[in-house]
Amino acid sequence: MIKNYSSFIDRTKSSAIRELLKLTSQPDIISFAGGLPDPNVFPIEIINDIIANILQNKSKVALQYGATEGVLEFKQELVKFISKSEGINLKPENILVTSASQQGLDLIGKAFINVSDPILVELPSYLGALQVFQSYGADIIGVKSDDDGVLIDDFAAKLDLLKRQNATCKFVYLVPDFQNPTGVTMSVERRHKLIEISKHYDLPIIEDSPYRQVRFEGDHCDMLYKLSNYDNVISLFTFSKIFVPGLRLGYMIGPEEAIMKMSTLKQSLDLCTSPLNQLIASEFLKGGYFDSHVKEIIGIYKKKKDVMLRALNEFMPEGVSWTTPEGGLFLWVRLPEYMDANQMFYNAVDEKVAYVIGSVFHCDNSGLNTLRLNFSYPSEEEIYEGIKRLAKVVKDRLKTPSKA
Amino acid sequence: MIKNYSSFIDRTKSSAIRELLKLTSQPDIISFAGGLPDPNVFPIEIINDIIANILQNKSKVALQYGATEGVLEFKQELVKFISKSEGINLKPENILVTSASQQGLDLIGKAFINVSDPILVELPSYLGALQVFQSYGADIIGVKSDDDGVLIDDFAAKLDLLKRQNATCKFVYLVPDFQNPTGVTMSVERRHKLIEISKHYDLPIIEDSPYRQVRFEGDHCDMLYKLSNYDNVISLFTFSKIFVPGLRLGYMIGPEEAIMKMSTLKQSLDLCTSPLNQLIASEFLKGGYFDSHVKEIIGIYKKKKDVMLRALNEFMPEGVSWTTPEGGLFLWVRLPEYMDANQMFYNAVDEKVAYVIGSVFHCDNSGLNTLRLNFSYPSEEEIYEGIKRLAKVVKDRLKTPSKA
Repeated sequence: MIKNYSSFIDRTKSSAIRELLKLTSQPDIISFAGGLPDPNVFPIEIINDIIANILQNKSKVALQYGATEGVLEFKQELVKFISKSEGINLKPENILVTSASQQGLDLIGKAFINVSDPILVELPSYLGALQVFQSYGADIIGVKSDDDGVLIDDFAAKLDLLKRQNATCKFVYLVPDFQNPTGVTMSVERRHKLIEISKHYDLPIIEDSPYRQVRFEGDHCDMLYKLSNYDNVISLFTFSKIFVPGLRLGYMIGPEEAIMKMSTLKQSLDLCTSPLNQLIASEFLKGGYFDSHVKEIIGIYKKKKDVMLRALNEFMPEGVSWTTPEGGLFLWVRLPEYMDANQMFYNAVDEKVAYVIGSVFHCDNSGLNTLRLNFSYPSEEEIYEGIKRLAKVVKDRLKTPSKA
Repeated sequence: MIKNYSSFIDRTKSSAIRELLKLTSQPDIISFAGGLPDPNVFPIEIINDIIANILQNKSKVALQYGATEGVLEFKQELVKFISKSEGINLKPENILVTSASQQGLDLIGKAFINVSDPILVELPSYLGALQVFQSYGADIIGVKSDDDGVLIDDFAAKLDLLKRQNATCKFVYLVPDFQNPTGVTMSVERRHKLIEISKHYDLPIIEDSPYRQVRFEGDHCDMLYKLSNYDNVISLFTFSKIFVPGLRLGYMIGPEEAIMKMSTLKQSLDLCTSPLNQLIASEFLKGGYFDSHVKEIIGIYKKKKDVMLRALNEFMPEGVSWTTPEGGLFLWVRLPEYMDANQMFYNAVDEKVAYVIGSVFHCDNSGLNTLRLNFSYPSEEEIYEGIKRLAKVVKDRLKTPSKA
């Protein structure tokens, strides 16, 4: 029998929602619970051609071990891509290729967090990040947010309090664009203020940007990375939402010294990310497939988002509100304060519809009356029907508040 | 500027040999320093056909997110493979797919090590493992070894001492087959004794088996996993040496409960290993390509090993000895005690030949007079010429021991 486990094991919870999600795997359930891209947009033929080409011309790079920091020709493509798409001008040394964003988050946790270190996150925040930071033993402090992102006053107040306690806040973690779980985008004004305050406190900002390129409408906002003058921000990206998740491919950008430190950590995590998979994405960018592919994704997800909003408007009773995301994969529903989305989950499953309970995204376990809906994976028909079912569940519990 | 780093950063050293290895990248140097498989054996056409097939028939699995524990059909192939090759009978629940062995090592470090926890390793031991365990803050204790593996008396003595100090040794880490760096295989007798003692002390055994299938000659030894009756052993495998490293694909086997804990940890590391890459290996096994491919690798590496042994016999002066590995990728050279392979490294580079200094594999920094030679990557001609050059370097320093 295996014994002697570390405290990491105690601190790393198997996501509570995993158990709930098992209930949603019945085939007749319409699930808004996942975060999967629509597999119908995967550019299979392009990938097939790219791979055949790589195996013919670059197999000894693709199939061999690669440099920990990433395959140079891929990083050079990324430099061009980031310059063109974000107006951020980097050298390859500012980029670390990661085995998708989740590894980026793990590297951030490992690089910054000693047990009991305070960090700041949004209320609510991305569950996968909360789990990593928790596994490293962080003291996770939530900053209140609304439909324009984090509340700057609360952010400043939390930092001030920590300073008065002589505690060093290690970083603030944010998803500024089409946030997971809320779909909210941080306003430009707040971005500027956040950076100003974080510089005052010498606070690193971790900017997680998995959905940024998937903008349906509204105005372009510069990345925190750019607005900070490349100073105290590390930004994480992934190809999971704009290409395919199955390659497990992402990257982080940051000051050269920080990237070097992360690269040393990554060496002991997995030596390197699959060079084959890096070259696939590299050729996808180089071949000029990216723009039209993302345009296709945007078109499909925007239509799905619109169907979801239309159905919410049509079916949801008064007292229920939701966000109207300008991009991404998710929107956020707020039920009346007295309602409990956790309890309601079982009624929803009975009605053959599923969501993720909002409380799991709150580091302080608040948000009992909230829930997250994904619109990228289900079809438009399923979205319409699913929201109809969900609205029925909500109405049933509205009628019987004593149960809540 | 980014600040606020954790103690992981201090504990994770950029491999000292990385700097040395930079010296070896000149094209006219014959390098025995790497650990790369020979790219000429990569089965490129088979991989091409397999991928085309996957993208045609299973693209929605291959390119989507997958289960953290691994793609079920791949794990089912692994169950069959392990049963056939090792006589070990498992369920899919005993297997966790990893992003190659290095991630397996990281999971082991994370799952078991709190800062200052003692662990046992071989003297010498695999550098990549030492680095991971160090990054988690382990108190790494070396067990002496010879050409039959670890010395059982020293193993028992170290455990006894720790027990008397009321310290819990978290695990013993071993590469029992064709060890990296020595090429040594642990004898059957010692395997039995190691297991007996480890059970007495309730000590988990971590068995790292990256080269096991690459046996050139000699008798088959059962794995520690099998000899322990599947009780207190976790074993790590990789496809890097028997297929291609570029897929970054491996797996660990262990008791179901341990695998579940590791799987929870892996969720926060990278969510899942590339399903595309898992399916490639799965189809490689399923298609029956494995046996003939490994046979080819064995044939090529055995010839290279024989050339290296022949050249060592022919050129090395008296007082220098080396191991005669029955498999794997490495052999180990012992210089006379007074010699310093670290200092000699620069002479070797001057003579256009490179190796890895032996001291980096020793957790106690001993082994100054040792070095590791890789025979899988260089060609037979390069091996012969390189050993000739190396012997010259050794002889030059033999003649001038006062410099040492």
